[in-house]
Amino acid sequence: MPAAPTTLPLVATAGATAGACCAPLTGEPLSAETAAALARTLKALADPARLRLLSLVAAHEGGEACVCDLTEPLGLSQPTVSHHLKVLVEAGLLTRDKRGVWAYFAVVPETLNALAAVLVTPARPAS
Amino acid sequence: MPAAPTTLPLVATAGATAGACCAPLTGEPLSAETAAALARTLKALADPARLRLLSLVAAHEGGEACVCDLTEPLGLSQPTVSHHLKVLVEAGLLTRDKRGVWAYFAVVPETLNALAAVLVTPARPAS
Repeated sequence: MPAAPTTLPLVATAGATAGACCAPLTGEPLSAETAAALARTLKALADPARLRLLSLVAAHEGGEACVCDLTEPLGLSQPTVSHHLKVLVEAGLLTRDKRGVWAYFAVVPETLNALAAVLVTPARPAS
Repeated sequence: MPAAPTTLPLVATAGATAGACCAPLTGEPLSAETAAALARTLKALADPARLRLLSLVAAHEGGEACVCDLTEPLGLSQPTVSHHLKVLVEAGLLTRDKRGVWAYFAVVPETLNALAAVLVTPARPAS
């Protein structure tokens, strides 16, 4: 079971359908608290290496990967990859499951879907 | 008509349905170029004041607002608000339309919807 996300309160109560939990960004003005939480999660995502890590983990066999699978395709050192993975886990975007020598990481679809639900915006009527 | 977004190539070809243009983050590994462009747009969003500005603009009468409408609800100075608005315009998240003394800003739904489409992730099969 995915660990509960820690930095996006919008997501903490999310069930399988993230859409039900999250008021869209463009619905009504965000409170300062909601905006701060959302910004923290977006900051964790807003890095090219972390975006590539997320997509590599998701595309990996079984939907999970260890650091050992990720250093070579990214061309980054293991400590650097581990740092980025930690940021993603802390943001609730990845889970971490230690098994034997390695920790295995998997994407948390609920967090990404909750973010997507916040961003979805109805088209403006033609003026 | 909204200005063409300048930093998210994924969006540059977006029509009304952003979903058609953007490969999901968790579909196949992102290229370095796509990840860099996506990170730039997410960075523009990943700020509490800018998230609140976007939601204030969207919620404003007629879906547009000038700096004069935005300083008081945010409690920030006009130069600070203008700086954040500039970042959002450069990221293709807001349009700017100068009319008379004021510039009027409006949300670009296509950019937000393209980001949402990138983030949407299918649920993992139960293990």
